[in-house]
Amino acid sequence: MNLATLNINLGSIKKNLNQIQNLSDETVETSAVLKANAYGLGVEPIAIFLFNEGVRTFFVSTVNEAVELSALLPKNAKIYYLNGYSLTDYQAISEFNIMPVLNSIEQITNFTQETDRKQAALQIDVGMKRLGLNQSELLKAKNLCKSIDLNLILGHLSSADNESDPVNLQQLKLFSNLASFFPSIPKSLAATGGTVLGENYHFDMTRPGIGLFGGNPLKNPEKVVTLSLPVLQIKDIKANEGVGYNHTFISKRKRKIAIVGSGYADGLSRQLSNSGILYGGDVMCPILGRISMDLITVDISNLRENPSFLTALGPSQTIDDLAEQSATIGYEILTSLGSRYKRVYNY
Amino acid sequence: MNLATLNINLGSIKKNLNQIQNLSDETVETSAVLKANAYGLGVEPIAIFLFNEGVRTFFVSTVNEAVELSALLPKNAKIYYLNGYSLTDYQAISEFNIMPVLNSIEQITNFTQETDRKQAALQIDVGMKRLGLNQSELLKAKNLCKSIDLNLILGHLSSADNESDPVNLQQLKLFSNLASFFPSIPKSLAATGGTVLGENYHFDMTRPGIGLFGGNPLKNPEKVVTLSLPVLQIKDIKANEGVGYNHTFISKRKRKIAIVGSGYADGLSRQLSNSGILYGGDVMCPILGRISMDLITVDISNLRENPSFLTALGPSQTIDDLAEQSATIGYEILTSLGSRYKRVYNY
Repeated sequence: MNLATLNINLGSIKKNLNQIQNLSDETVETSAVLKANAYGLGVEPIAIFLFNEGVRTFFVSTVNEAVELSALLPKNAKIYYLNGYSLTDYQAISEFNIMPVLNSIEQITNFTQETDRKQAALQIDVGMKRLGLNQSELLKAKNLCKSIDLNLILGHLSSADNESDPVNLQQLKLFSNLASFFPSIPKSLAATGGTVLGENYHFDMTRPGIGLFGGNPLKNPEKVVTLSLPVLQIKDIKANEGVGYNHTFISKRKRKIAIVGSGYADGLSRQLSNSGILYGGDVMCPILGRISMDLITVDISNLRENPSFLTALGPSQTIDDLAEQSATIGYEILTSLGSRYKRVYNY
Repeated sequence: MNLATLNINLGSIKKNLNQIQNLSDETVETSAVLKANAYGLGVEPIAIFLFNEGVRTFFVSTVNEAVELSALLPKNAKIYYLNGYSLTDYQAISEFNIMPVLNSIEQITNFTQETDRKQAALQIDVGMKRLGLNQSELLKAKNLCKSIDLNLILGHLSSADNESDPVNLQQLKLFSNLASFFPSIPKSLAATGGTVLGENYHFDMTRPGIGLFGGNPLKNPEKVVTLSLPVLQIKDIKANEGVGYNHTFISKRKRKIAIVGSGYADGLSRQLSNSGILYGGDVMCPILGRISMDLITVDISNLRENPSFLTALGPSQTIDDLAEQSATIGYEILTSLGSRYKRVYNY
């Protein structure tokens, strides 16, 4: 069995966590965002590892993800789900150790009417026009929330990956103003990008996600993932022979090619067709022709020996490198990593 | 709980199967390709359904997928895995009801030396330069295969989605020639595209995948999937307000927007940013700004009532429509469908 293997280095996650923690004053709590199966890397081992490393507050996206996470972590973990309180969530909230993030007046009203347990966070929309309350809604919310054990005020920056964008400072000021409606409640504005922007953005808690997993906009993150793909077959092709669907690559000269056992069904996007790179050690092996569902063909003419595996992510190529080739960002590279990969965790 | 729901209509799969079967003479067997978790739709219910509809031969990609499928189906199902025989597969082959597709001399040699059970298929590379043997290798293979119970000869067209590509006829001729080295063994060349090309391409067995699931190049396929996404919040935005990360969309006028609970972590690619469409009934709701990991913002100004759900796939939009907006093909739309969706099967 030649298994495509995704290796996840927990020690590197720890180093990234520590780098992020060191960006903040020690009074600031560093939480962890583990939505989308911990950015595709596997929520169970990563949540348990981070808890053992001292992380106590976790964010996921949906109520189902929160329920799943609560089954993995001790009762003193705080688990919030970001997508907001919806009708019928009260059952999950009463049975499991989870808290909603309230994003609208309607959600606050439903939450206060339907649940006995009143712990929740409140999200302010500081400018992304995604989830959260605006200024006029917050004025109403202040009264409604008197019957809730509100324990966190959240905001989310829209452009934190771009340090020079003046929007960051505008959103920081807006968050400071609006969050001051709730003077005694802890506050959190920064994900990875906001944490890098500086301590003014940290308030009481930072919420890194991508930075933990080795991606921009954390500066010089430790690489967390290695993705090794099995070589299923090696062939020689002649000049003028086409490769892959619709022969979108026609070779001008003879080459040695490897057919590799991974494809777009495993999250290596068709955008990589004729443009992406795999590596044999530190030698570039350009992708030839279209990415297939389960197969990729690459040029291995420059390798001295026939490889058993080639790497898509590893020492020679980061998630951000592969993202550039895929016309996306490192986040989507991670969340697209397929379920057929054997996931191996080491330290 | 507002769950994003993927509805899979097994009745539509049956109609597509029947349409494909009707393209062939009744002596031709129609198999099913169920690799990549049945193109993302869930291999368990679909394999069982297709078996009950009379399909007896199944193809998957990896040995692990074959083992999984063999646990779902009765012993008279024939299950091949396409990615080839590799060392250590003999254990899985001896324990489970699965057969490898042999793609190289090395694989044939290993297979004959390592396994007691000798049933396998042989793949000819007719021009894609992916898996399979070329002409000179086939001459050697003919002798090596005498000790094997070879029960199928496979080929795969590189350009079957393009009826006017002369490569199709060239590859058909090459397959006919090379497969004739094995006169008494059943042959199969056509996936969905090849099946549509005409009966000359069918030989003894067709191998549809995408066509079963309602995608091109099947002509007028029945739609199989409906993808309904919950509306988490509705907002009004003013002229000159930005939406989403980095405010890549700035509205010229006031609009009503909906924030929807799905994102690129669920397989709705960032390529859809500022270009994709969701639907409220048959009313187009353009995606505004960037797709986030778990959220999408759309313009619902043209809807008469506030929606609870919007559809990404359904009566108003096929997988091929969404693929065009995503700069890819329907196959990648399906295989990218996320694991957070609640999958519902009806008939």
